[in-house]
Amino acid sequence: MRTKSAESVFTIGVDLGGTTTSFAIVDSSGKIIAKELISTRTSSVDEWADNLSCGIEKLIVSSGIGGNIKGIGIGAPCANAVTGCIEAATDLPWKSPIPLAQMMEKRLGLPTTITNDANAAAIGEMAYGSALGLKNFIVLTLGTGVGSGIVCDGHLLSGTRGFAGELGHMTFSFASDRECACGRKGCLQTVASAKGIIETTRRLLRESDTPSSLRDIPADELSPLAVQQAARDGDNIAREIYDFTGRCLGMAAAEFASITDPEAIILFGGVSKAGDLLLNPMKEAFRQSVLHLYRDTVKLTVSGLRDADAAILGAASLPYLGQD
Amino acid sequence: MRTKSAESVFTIGVDLGGTTTSFAIVDSSGKIIAKELISTRTSSVDEWADNLSCGIEKLIVSSGIGGNIKGIGIGAPCANAVTGCIEAATDLPWKSPIPLAQMMEKRLGLPTTITNDANAAAIGEMAYGSALGLKNFIVLTLGTGVGSGIVCDGHLLSGTRGFAGELGHMTFSFASDRECACGRKGCLQTVASAKGIIETTRRLLRESDTPSSLRDIPADELSPLAVQQAARDGDNIAREIYDFTGRCLGMAAAEFASITDPEAIILFGGVSKAGDLLLNPMKEAFRQSVLHLYRDTVKLTVSGLRDADAAILGAASLPYLGQD
Repeated sequence: MRTKSAESVFTIGVDLGGTTTSFAIVDSSGKIIAKELISTRTSSVDEWADNLSCGIEKLIVSSGIGGNIKGIGIGAPCANAVTGCIEAATDLPWKSPIPLAQMMEKRLGLPTTITNDANAAAIGEMAYGSALGLKNFIVLTLGTGVGSGIVCDGHLLSGTRGFAGELGHMTFSFASDRECACGRKGCLQTVASAKGIIETTRRLLRESDTPSSLRDIPADELSPLAVQQAARDGDNIAREIYDFTGRCLGMAAAEFASITDPEAIILFGGVSKAGDLLLNPMKEAFRQSVLHLYRDTVKLTVSGLRDADAAILGAASLPYLGQD
Repeated sequence: MRTKSAESVFTIGVDLGGTTTSFAIVDSSGKIIAKELISTRTSSVDEWADNLSCGIEKLIVSSGIGGNIKGIGIGAPCANAVTGCIEAATDLPWKSPIPLAQMMEKRLGLPTTITNDANAAAIGEMAYGSALGLKNFIVLTLGTGVGSGIVCDGHLLSGTRGFAGELGHMTFSFASDRECACGRKGCLQTVASAKGIIETTRRLLRESDTPSSLRDIPADELSPLAVQQAARDGDNIAREIYDFTGRCLGMAAAEFASITDPEAIILFGGVSKAGDLLLNPMKEAFRQSVLHLYRDTVKLTVSGLRDADAAILGAASLPYLGQD
């Protein structure tokens, strides 16, 4: 047993979301050994980095792992793998650019690799989730914003400066009256993100007199999960919210199919937990609007991984990828 | 000299367009030795294949090449490299699927490889044209329809069944009242193709009383080239046509930038010969509508290769690629 312990290698996977940061110790087989959360809504990025460093150190101690920590992998919005910086994230409360890799290396003395949070989710789905064995798929992360990781011909698209796959900022007529944090109108994420769900809720409640349990929820407590719960309890407005969001996602997915001829488009993140409430209208709208070439060839599904595990596992695999 | 001749290897490159088929003998350095055209508007695909075979044989004899013909490469709409078939092309006058590779192998006894015509153009641009040395770019072929070849991280995207890069069938609100040959509305190609230019011309002439030399051209003689000539002669309607088309292309290119973070988006084909008439409004619209991340990083340009050379050269390189 001593020999095994001496050989064990671990990495730290971090999923930096707009609201919450999840982090975990992961072993070399992809098993999550210990996991923790901190808030992303701090007044400064230094405060957040201090909290994260402290949290990681505590997790290492409490888990009692005997092996080596190979490095830290972080999935974050607008993270540039080349520079190690968050360049221009509109969904984070801090000013960009943020030299994230450098900040964490300085605090913990561990080599740190970063990538787009959606790319991290895509790597996680490919290694352990719904995309196991697939060579062509798109992961849409429906969180505070909407990100995407595009895998085509077995390769995760990176692009000139690492900014490939910003599908959440592609614009659609169904969102033409919605302003995005990026300063433009019509971005997919103005509808399909947590913020988008809340905005749709506000609009539908304002535009009708239909009774709804959602009217009893204080504005600052509205969330995709609260709407999902109401929909499952039979609330008509709540069902309409997910029906609308699903149809929009179906129309968007129909456009995305024309880009990479994917085998699957996988939804990931808080909004996707609605499952069939979202998937059924999405599939119907996809079928109605997609080009004939892709009509029966794209599987639309939600992540097969629990919680934010895909993003964390993908991030945790970054220190290994860095060696290629 | 005899030794050199004995070593020479040639390939046949074929660019199957919706109206015209170009084909050429190309040497291993990418030099076009001899080139010819036939019409694509035949009543049957067999008639076309007979004409092409006959034309290739004549070209081989008349060019007096002494070396080996390694194979034939064909770029064609909706061509599937995996099956060797044209699967469901809406811009060809024949019924799909068409076992194109097999048909040509049978007629000429030469190994035949096919790919999407836009992919062939992308390979040609990468090998000899505007994309020389680039690892991230998109080629938009503005011909009878609109095709695209997407190169990301140095790799030409293929997708599950070889149907990646159908960007001409992505839909946009600026074309929401235009019906596409695919049966849907709003596809980019309903505006930015040769057919799109003609439709825009008809609409603008109908909607205004502005004098225009285009009114003197019989409907069946209207072409992108005729409109380009009129625009260069100062015709206001003709300028408005390319201004509108350029703006639409700029808005579309702004969306495409979010997909692969490209260094360049390269226009190719008949409509692109308008040059700055098209590029200037395209650049302005791109800058106005693109996400900040890509605002000053994408070069918009027209193909640096003469006529359909990029497509032919790309197709001619297919027999070599097939050996990888």
